[in-house]
Order: sequence, then C-alpha cells, then structure tokens
Amino acid sequence: MQIGKPSQLRTSISTATPDSITVRNRDLCKELIGQVSLTDFFCLLLTGQPPTNVQRLFLDASLVSIAEHGLVPSIQAARMTFAAAPEALQGAVAAGLLGCGSVVLGSSEEAGKLFAGLLAKTPQEGTLEQVVEHEISALRARRAPLPGFGHPLHQQEDPRATRLLAMADEHGTAGENVRVLRAIAAAVPKIYGRALPINVSGAIPAVLLDVGFPLKALKGVPLVARSVSLVAHLLEESMEPIGFALAHAGESAIEYVG
Amino acid sequence: MQIGKPSQLRTSISTATPDSITVRNRDLCKELIGQVSLTDFFCLLLTGQPPTNVQRLFLDASLVSIAEHGLVPSIQAARMTFAAAPEALQGAVAAGLLGCGSVVLGSSEEAGKLFAGLLAKTPQEGTLEQVVEHEISALRARRAPLPGFGHPLHQQEDPRATRLLAMADEHGTAGENVRVLRAIAAAVPKIYGRALPINVSGAIPAVLLDVGFPLKALKGVPLVARSVSLVAHLLEESMEPIGFALAHAGESAIEYVG
Amino acid sequence: MQIGKPSQLRTSISTATPDSITVRNRDLCKELIGQVSLTDFFCLLLTGQPPTNVQRLFLDASLVSIAEHGLVPSIQAARMTFAAAPEALQGAVAAGLLGCGSVVLGSSEEAGKLFAGLLAKTPQEGTLEQVVEHEISALRARRAPLPGFGHPLHQQEDPRATRLLAMADEHGTAGENVRVLRAIAAAVPKIYGRALPINVSGAIPAVLLDVGFPLKALKGVPLVARSVSLVAHLLEESMEPIGFALAHAGESAIEYVG
Amino acid sequence: MQIGKPSQLRTSISTATPDSITVRNRDLCKELIGQVSLTDFFCLLLTGQPPTNVQRLFLDASLVSIAEHGLVPSIQAARMTFAAAPEALQGAVAAGLLGCGSVVLGSSEEAGKLFAGLLAKTPQEGTLEQVVEHEISALRARRAPLPGFGHPLHQQEDPRATRLLAMADEHGTAGENVRVLRAIAAAVPKIYGRALPINVSGAIPAVLLDVGFPLKALKGVPLVARSVSLVAHLLEESMEPIGFALAHAGESAIEYVG
Repeated sequence: MQIGKPSQLRTSISTATPDSITVRNRDLCKELIGQVSLTDFFCLLLTGQPPTNVQRLFLDASLVSIAEHGLVPSIQAARMTFAAAPEALQGAVAAGLLGCGSVVLGSSEEAGKLFAGLLAKTPQEGTLEQVVEHEISALRARRAPLPGFGHPLHQQEDPRATRLLAMADEHGTAGENVRVLRAIAAAVPKIYGRALPINVSGAIPAVLLDVGFPLKALKGVPLVARSVSLVAHLLEESMEPIGFALAHAGESAIEYVG
Repeated sequence: MQIGKPSQLRTSISTATPDSITVRNRDLCKELIGQVSLTDFFCLLLTGQPPTNVQRLFLDASLVSIAEHGLVPSIQAARMTFAAAPEALQGAVAAGLLGCGSVVLGSSEEAGKLFAGLLAKTPQEGTLEQVVEHEISALRARRAPLPGFGHPLHQQEDPRATRLLAMADEHGTAGENVRVLRAIAAAVPKIYGRALPINVSGAIPAVLLDVGFPLKALKGVPLVARSVSLVAHLLEESMEPIGFALAHAGESAIEYVG
Repeated sequence: MQIGKPSQLRTSISTATPDSITVRNRDLCKELIGQVSLTDFFCLLLTGQPPTNVQRLFLDASLVSIAEHGLVPSIQAARMTFAAAPEALQGAVAAGLLGCGSVVLGSSEEAGKLFAGLLAKTPQEGTLEQVVEHEISALRARRAPLPGFGHPLHQQEDPRATRLLAMADEHGTAGENVRVLRAIAAAVPKIYGRALPINVSGAIPAVLLDVGFPLKALKGVPLVARSVSLVAHLLEESMEPIGFALAHAGESAIEYVG
Repeated sequence: MQIGKPSQLRTSISTATPDSITVRNRDLCKELIGQVSLTDFFCLLLTGQPPTNVQRLFLDASLVSIAEHGLVPSIQAARMTFAAAPEALQGAVAAGLLGCGSVVLGSSEEAGKLFAGLLAKTPQEGTLEQVVEHEISALRARRAPLPGFGHPLHQQEDPRATRLLAMADEHGTAGENVRVLRAIAAAVPKIYGRALPINVSGAIPAVLLDVGFPLKALKGVPLVARSVSLVAHLLEESMEPIGFALAHAGESAIEYVG
C-alpha cells in the first residue's frame, strides 16, 4: 500500500479545532447552521460554493423527484434487512443504497456524460440533429443501453421528467443539455422503431447541468435522495413491519428445479 | 418465513400509476417537485405532514450541524472503500453509513429517549432537578454512557450544540426537552466530578423534540446528514485520491506482536 | 478521535515483508497454502491455533448446516441488489450479510451466552434442572426471546439441530453445553405451554463450545457460512435472473393506504 | 418493475420442507452435514457438484492464499466501522467486503477473462507467444491495467503466486491457463520495459481454471476468503480495539487546504 505519503494528504472540505468547525472556508456554527438548508449545504460541500437561486430550485426539485417511488427493489431489500437486523438502522439504509446501481438509479450520470459527449461533437461533426442521429444509431447498433429513456411503469411518459423540463422552460434555464435531451427524444422513434419516454434520470442531468451543477456530482443526487426515502420506509417498518411478509411473497413464488 | 400474509401488506408512504406518483396523499409532480425542499420532503415522508416554519428551521439546522466533521473514521472508511472499488460509489457511501453506529452517531436517539424517560417521572417522582440527579446518578452507578454529553475534540464546549440551543432561545421554541438537557448539564459536575459539554447529539433531540419532531425518527437525522457529506468526500476522492494513503498512515503505525 | 496512540497499535494476526507473509506466527506460503483447508485457516485466524480433529469436524458441520436455506430474506435482498447493481458483486454480498442480524442469524451467540450464564449458576444455585427452570421462567416472564429454539418452517423439529446433536453423541464430544441445551428443551413445554424445537442456532453453540470453540467467535460462524451461500446465489442470479421478479411479487402484494 | 412473472421464478440451489432441506439435490442433514467441508460445500453450491480431490486442494489453497494480508484498507475500514458500531458485527464485515472491488481484489476474475480471451485466439491468430505479445502490447497501448501482475509490497515476487504455481506443477494440474499466465510473464519485460511479478490474483485463476473451476465463479473466491479474515480481525478488535486509533493516525496526517 505504499501509495502516497502522509505529507501529501490534503482535503478542501473541512477542518476543526476545539472551538470551531470550518467547512469550505466558512464557520459552520456562525455562518451555516440556522442559515442554510440541507440542500444548500450539499451544494456547498460538493462545489465549494453555495447554490444560486436557480441551482437551489433545480437541485431540490431533482432530489425530490428521485427520492421516492414506492416499494422498489432497494426499498424491499432494506425493509427485509431491517426486519432481520433491527438493532442496526444504518445497516438497513446501507443495504438499500447498495441497490442504487448502474441498472436502476445510476443512469443520471450516464445520461449526463452522453449529453456532454454529443455536445462536444457539435458543430464540428454536424448539426445537433445529425450528431444525435449518428451517435445514438451507433449506440443502438452495439446494443448499449440508452441512459435517460424508458421506464417499466411509466411507459408513455414519466411525469417527473415532464415536470422538471417544464420547470426549466418556465424559469428560462433550459439550455444546451435540455436541447440535446429533446433532440435524442425526437430521434428515438426512427432509430428504435418506437417512442421511448424521457425518464427522470434523463431530465435530472439535463436541468442540473444547464444551471451549472458539476457532471461528476450527478451520481450523488440519487444516493442522497434515496437515503431520505429509506429512513422514512424504515421508520414505517419499525411501526408496521412488512419486511418478512414481502420475502414470503417472493419465496412462495419460487420453484426449485434441482 | 411464514410471518404475515400478502393481504395484510400495507404502506402509507406512496404509490404510483403509469400517469402519476402519489406520496403521502399528494401528487408528487403537481404538488411537490419544484415547490418543496428536500428537507420539507424528508419531513413529509417521515410524518405525513409538511414541516411548520420552525420545524423546517430546526430540521435543517440539525442536519447541517451533524453532516460534516472532517476525516472522521466513517469518512476514512468510505474513502478507502472507494479507492479499492471505484466502480461502485454506492458501496463507498454504504460503507461510510455503516459507521453511523451506537458509539459515534447513534446517540441523538438515545439522548431523546433519556429526556422522555426523565420527563415522564416528573412531577410524580420529584422536581425535574431531583429526578435528573437521581436517574443520572443511577446511570453513572451502572457505568452506562451518558448520551449527548462529551466529545473527544470539543472538550470544553461543542460549538454546534451551543448554536442550536441559542437558536431555540432566539425563536422561543425551547421547551421541556431543552430544559431537561440543561438540567442534566447542571447536574453533571457533581455526579461525574467534572463538567462534560453538551454535544451536538444532545442538542439535536432537545431542539427537534421541542418543535414536535417524532422521537422514533431521530435516528434517521444523522444518517441523512452523513449521506450528504459522504457524497462530497467521495467526489473529492475521485479527483484527489487519499484513501490508500490514509490506510498507509494507519498500517505504518501497527506493530505485529505474534 | 484522540483515543489511543500510534505507538500502542498492535495486532496478533499477521504481518508481511516483501518476501513473506506471516499469519499467526506461521509462514503463509510455506506452512499453510496447500496444507490446510479454509476451515482450518478460519480457526487459526480466530484462535491462533489450528483446529483439533473434532474441532475441524464440528466447525465444518456447523458452517455447512447454517450456510444455505433457500430464498430467505437476506438472499432475496442480495439478489435484488445484484439485479440493480451488477457492476458490484461485493455490494450484493454485503447487502445479504447485513440481514444476518439479531432476529435471523444472530441467535447462535445469544444461545451460547445463555448456556454460559446457566452453567455459571450451577451447582451453587441449584441443580442444572432447577437453575434452568428458574432462569428460563424469568426470561419468559420478562418476554425476552429464547435463543436457539423455534423455527417458522421446522415447527416440530429442525433436522439440522438433530443432526449436529447426534454427531456430538456419536463422537463423544457432547458435554455441559449440550447438556444445558437439552435441559432447556425439557423445561420448555412446562414453561411455554407447548414444545419448541431446538433450532440450528441452538445446536451450533452447544456442539462448538463443547469442543472448545471460543464463545466470542460464535457470531462469525453464520457470517462466514452465509458469504458462501450468497456468492452461489449471486452466480445463479447472473445466469438466471430473478431479483426483479421477486421484487415484483412483493410489490404486487402491497396496498397503499394513504 | 414488471419484469418476469412469478410463474417463471426458479432456483436450482435449494428448497426445504418442514422435515428436510435439499441442497443441489442432496439431503443437507443426511448427506452433507458432518461429511463435507465448507470448501466442498462452496463448490457444490456454486457448480452443483462436489469437488474432485485436486479441485478441493486448489480451491482451499486459493482461498487460504487470498484471505489475509494484514491491515489492508478494507480491514482498516471494517475495524473503524466496528469501533463506531459494535452492535452490528455484520455491518463491519459488510463494510470490509465493500472494499473488495475492481482495484484491490477483483482482478482474479479479470485475469481469468484475459486468459480465456488469449486462448480463444490461438492457434488461429498465431502461436501463444505471438498472440500474447500482440494482445498485451495492445492492452498496454490503450493504458488498460494488466490484471494479475504487480504488487505494491511484493515488488520482485509474490510468494503466494509462486507457491500456487509450484503446487500446480507438483500435482500435474498445470494446463493451458498456467501456460498463458507464464507466457504473459515472459512477455512483460519487453512490453513494459521492466519485470512485473505474477501476483496472487494472477495465479488463482490460472490454477483454478486448470482444474475446471468455472470462470464466472472466480469473483466469489476473494469475497468468501475475506469474510473469514474480516471475522477474525473483528474478533481481535472486540478484544484489543485499534479502529479509532487507526483513524487518528490517518486524520493526523491530513492537511486542510481550504
């Protein structure tokens, strides 16, 4: 493990003395507690700067849109875990977050990267429409998933995406990322042979990148949002337990085929 | 696992149709996204009701006060985990949350329970001061920890606790829980032979319970707060890696004694 | 975190140089690899000593008996997690282990502690039968669970427990811990008004403590055993996915009650 | 989550009735407990077949070789987690396993895939030496890591790899996978400009694939092995705590750069 030396270890996030705690060059107790929201603090921790008004608006809207969607697999996993190990709430929250992976909640960041890649090719390689058609066709040809599109339940339209994009229009923040998202949506029927709705994980990076949220921080948005939802489900589980009954429903449906 | 039957499975948190998502009887897209903060949404998910103004103020203040305190053990564990497994941000966040246990961050709930227990004995078993002296002496006698007091770094005073309690005085929300906390603080020097500062995990339950936050939800406050901080540290780790160097510092300090 | 000083940091487990690795005072490459089983190595790591023949036999038997029991909640949680986050097998194994808690798999250690406590009171406080009747009645009176007894599926008899206890008889290793376990089983019908079977988590501590396995290490037995089973289920999940379908079975059974 | 239907849910691993438990078509209590080792059971669970003698030998040797290597980052993360949350041993084991990722312990499977890919190109695309030189040069050119080679401490030679490969020679099991591993080692100095040692994660897939262990199951080998080591370290932590002191060593080395 001879990587790095103690003298090179640095952080820009925070430090503390017996008398004070400094976060991103601000005094936690004098400048932050009681004056900023958790969302503001999240933005400050991530970027070193408090959010502007539209950044706060869209970060809150994105977090609220992705936090809760009922008894999804990660919530069920967390509730089963809590039923079996009620001594450790943190373990059940952790089990739920472990299901925020590439298939289910990780596509916000993938979609953000896709937008950035497409924008980097315009106008040198063609108009936005031409670049989108070419690149999405190539993606389809190599059978790669299209991040930010499609949903097993919201097959016609994901109402969360519709709302976030409408907000971007209302507040005049829709920029090149919303534009590229809509260009992809327009190209999808021709390339895939059917319409696929923009989903919440497509809309979040579009509206957040357009207000200056950093691409690398996108992956943290669903994780923070889901921690909120997990705590609420686990509070309900502690009062109205269903974790084992959920497992029983699954177990009853299984056939052993030896 | 024959516990419960599918017909008994219920949740009060949310449901969804292809066209809409309902959270705590509100339409997520029409009534919540763009209109409430993450903190409001957390309160709604937990309790079924949006926060009042003072509830929002103290929930945000509590979350901000407990979210970040530098390279604490759980942050180091998360950064080491991310260095070894960068393919899974969710795993590193989970590893960090697993260290939010009874010794380090779980004492908010313990302190809240202690306050409730002491208040339940007054005035039947004596004045608040009498009950506190009797019960804290008993706790000391059986060598149980005193939740909400003491800190390895902030040995004279935890400035976060001071700030939260000052806010409760300023906003006129200080009630019986702040009163019992201060009664314990006053009794400590006599019982323990030295002063112990009220720490942030003592102040959080006092100010939150006094604005009507449910006791059972206290344990979720540090977990949500730390998820925010973990995401920020892991973003920094992805850009300025120190996880392996931190492990090297620890490893170098170890002696094998066979 | 000013607890401990670097100069005090010690481990007795292992150390390494560029040329060799030393585990419990043995050269890993010259004395262990190719010469001992994983079970032997587990015992050596835990206790500093390789197992005797009967220790190996009963440690393997215990691990094999507790490793696999079909689509239990923790396996379902792990398979759902893997379906959502297939990039991180380690995350799905971790999610499964997080469900090895006090309610489901943690009772081996609790049962072991119960046996030790009962044995410590004989013969001073009475015969084994008297102590058992008195203490188990008290436990029943305070509504505490009886670790090591009862199973939702194996309601008459847990065949794993039967097998482990028969092995202890066959090999002549049954000692005071098996004796106390059987004394509890004999007292249960009178105290609880019905027979409760000895379960696998009651038999494991009995047979292991009787061959000298340390009480404090009992909690690790189900964790190691389940890691084996989790890896096998996740390999099956990667080839024949059922994680999302299990979640669908649970989700379909849920009613939203607003 | 409308993926799959309950009627399609199947497993080949195990099932249970009130009277018996069936694992891979064997009666757990009559045919397995007391008759097979944990390693045998692991192989049976994974593949549906008990191991042959050489499979058992090399699976045990591989597990023992990768289980323990001192205070590596994942062990430190686990010990810090346990110090903060001693109520949940399973959480600390989970935190440790979460660090078994692509950078540190995941390379066994990557190396196995590399071997399979190289072997699939011979002899059509050239001799083994030609294919290796061409493909490893290409891998180097695109700056991809070379799985199975190099170690921060064992810079000249990883003694675990040497031992495993010597065993394959002694037992006459060295086949095409050991051959391709050695061909890569021979090509490395020319391609990389310096020798890199075969590490334990290169030797494990070579010796295991040569005795018929399935490629897809390789990733589980370090996970099971590390669960054993984690339990031992956490038992030591419960008796001789160093988790917080390790964190203190790291924290002391950090500079805040605002």
